Amino acid sequence: MTLDDLPTPCLILDRTILRRNIAAMAAALARHGVPLRPHMKTAKSIDVARLALAGQPGGITVSTLAEAEYFAAYGIADILYAVGITPQKLDTVARLNADGSDIAVITDDPDIAAAIAAHPRAPRTLIEIDTGEGRAGLLADDDRLLVLADRLGPKLAGVMTHAGHSYAGRSAADMARCAEAERAGVVRAAQRLRAAGHAAPIVSMGSSPTALAAARLDGVTEVRAGVYMFGDLFQAEIGTHAVEDIAVTVLASVIGRRDGQVLIDAGGLALSKDRSTEAAPKDWGFGLVLDRLGRRSHGEAMVRRAYQEHGVVVPDPSCPLDLKVGDRVRVAPNHTCMTAAAHDRYHVVDDGGSEIAAVWSRVNGW
Amino acid sequence: MTLDDLPTPCLILDRTILRRNIAAMAAALARHGVPLRPHMKTAKSIDVARLALAGQPGGITVSTLAEAEYFAAYGIADILYAVGITPQKLDTVARLNADGSDIAVITDDPDIAAAIAAHPRAPRTLIEIDTGEGRAGLLADDDRLLVLADRLGPKLAGVMTHAGHSYAGRSAADMARCAEAERAGVVRAAQRLRAAGHAAPIVSMGSSPTALAAARLDGVTEVRAGVYMFGDLFQAEIGTHAVEDIAVTVLASVIGRRDGQVLIDAGGLALSKDRSTEAAPKDWGFGLVLDRLGRRSHGEAMVRRAYQEHGVVVPDPSCPLDLKVGDRVRVAPNHTCMTAAAHDRYHVVDDGGSEIAAVWSRVNGW
Repeated sequence: MTLDDLPTPCLILDRTILRRNIAAMAAALARHGVPLRPHMKTAKSIDVARLALAGQPGGITVSTLAEAEYFAAYGIADILYAVGITPQKLDTVARLNADGSDIAVITDDPDIAAAIAAHPRAPRTLIEIDTGEGRAGLLADDDRLLVLADRLGPKLAGVMTHAGHSYAGRSAADMARCAEAERAGVVRAAQRLRAAGHAAPIVSMGSSPTALAAARLDGVTEVRAGVYMFGDLFQAEIGTHAVEDIAVTVLASVIGRRDGQVLIDAGGLALSKDRSTEAAPKDWGFGLVLDRLGRRSHGEAMVRRAYQEHGVVVPDPSCPLDLKVGDRVRVAPNHTCMTAAAHDRYHVVDDGGSEIAAVWSRVNGW
Repeated sequence: MTLDDLPTPCLILDRTILRRNIAAMAAALARHGVPLRPHMKTAKSIDVARLALAGQPGGITVSTLAEAEYFAAYGIADILYAVGITPQKLDTVARLNADGSDIAVITDDPDIAAAIAAHPRAPRTLIEIDTGEGRAGLLADDDRLLVLADRLGPKLAGVMTHAGHSYAGRSAADMARCAEAERAGVVRAAQRLRAAGHAAPIVSMGSSPTALAAARLDGVTEVRAGVYMFGDLFQAEIGTHAVEDIAVTVLASVIGRRDGQVLIDAGGLALSKDRSTEAAPKDWGFGLVLDRLGRRSHGEAMVRRAYQEHGVVVPDPSCPLDLKVGDRVRVAPNHTCMTAAAHDRYHVVDDGGSEIAAVWSRVNGW
């Protein structure tokens, strides 16, 4: 089977690029001697997880309990569910752990810390630390840190943070500064816990940009990152990687032509309505249009408007689109986590080829 | 089972509101004596289709071949696939029609018209007409209209148009003007075909705003509309219905609290990244926050930031959010077609209740 046999729109994953991205992250962390706990929220695929885990301890990060259950079914026991736990989800985690998983949870809420401690099958728990993102977590110097630790008692397994504000960086130097704030904050929280007599063995940080750019990781016991596996236009714009490192694209068919523009069958549902690059140095609309083999044959052609099932491709003025209805293109996504989630599988190619080497599942939903 | 038993995030469908919206559309079209071919691209559910088809001829509209196959499996044969056909999809339609379906297709492309005519199992075909949206279709007076008709020969079944530009309207008068442009354009195209000796029995138009607001529909043989079934904040902003007519919401749990704001477990994946209301009179961020029963107990609280699995709820200044981690809210979506597509089922309640009366499937993907 080749690219031309696939119904469109669908996801294409170039395994050669994926492997290169995974090797780059492994090399970046090996410099520090710190292991990776890959975040599977982007790929949501056991086949991708197996590649990302090569040479690593084996634990993963997930963003939904559906992911936890899926990966547990494939034998991955050591899972960090890295979204604030609720009482109901605590019950679900306890059930999965009773079946052999070892899912750890996170919280920044004193009431939830008490609920965890009171639970008959409480999981290991990390306290979430805010090192600058401002989304969730306690500041490293917050008085409540010790309150939560006291409440969690033996269930306290450590601290974690996510420097999501690294996405506002625009250079390796910016990312290195974010990484140091992330490292220093989460290590400071761990030190405060230890000074108060808590073990806090796990000190977990990570985002793809900071993981790649960190100058030092002293005191950190693991790094979490996910989007680096696939990359996207936003990550390319902020310097995490190059446009040529984007491993996942949407294969689409031309369904209409008008005034030099073409309509494709990848719209808001197949690409997502994510507009991350609106705030980036270059705004890529709803995605950069490549040829069917993923090459930049169409210059800077991009999807400028996205209806539910229609995408309007505006050509690069220096590069007219010579395409007829039924011809195929690939669209590199703004934000691969969002785009991939619209699809239930990956069609895997190697090294820019046309042959479909494998079909890999994804776990969507909750 | 009640709302409190459901894992979050998930979709809630209030059947009472759904029935009211369906009745309103049926009444609007009954004034003109024109039947409805409901567009199932929003609901993608056989259970919803059955309600929408009450009192109508029985044909539906779809936006993907996955929908066509799903509805055909439930015995709906008369299907209009209302996205420009490609040669590959023509083969798929032919296969489904060989199994007993009667799927009609659309095109505005002379080469595709020739490919349809040459196909051994060519489906009935409508020529797509542009009545102002500027996305796809021929203008009613375009010379190519007769070229396409000649090429299609006996496969020509009529003309269709979609006044998507009605979404730029902001009043019933705007919508009525769009509806008349839509009607006049598609009827004019049909008249030109008939004057040239083509039968063109089907004259199909529609969008939810124009279907509800049209002052006359003479010459139109059917109307297509979909989003009216569920409604959304954008449709409320442009006057298609009221906020209280939004039938589909996302049930979410509070996962964190900070500075008067709350974090919920519905982010960009559960709500979609659609920002339709950015251009509307009122910008609802990523959605209006209601209480767990779908009531406006939180004023104008809205999801202002959406990460992959986190939504940041900013309260209405006059209405502090008294919520703790684990409490539940509902989020009314900007664009229900996008939001619903992130979920694989509906949890059905009646009349603002808490009891889950049914679980209805959806067909996502392609």
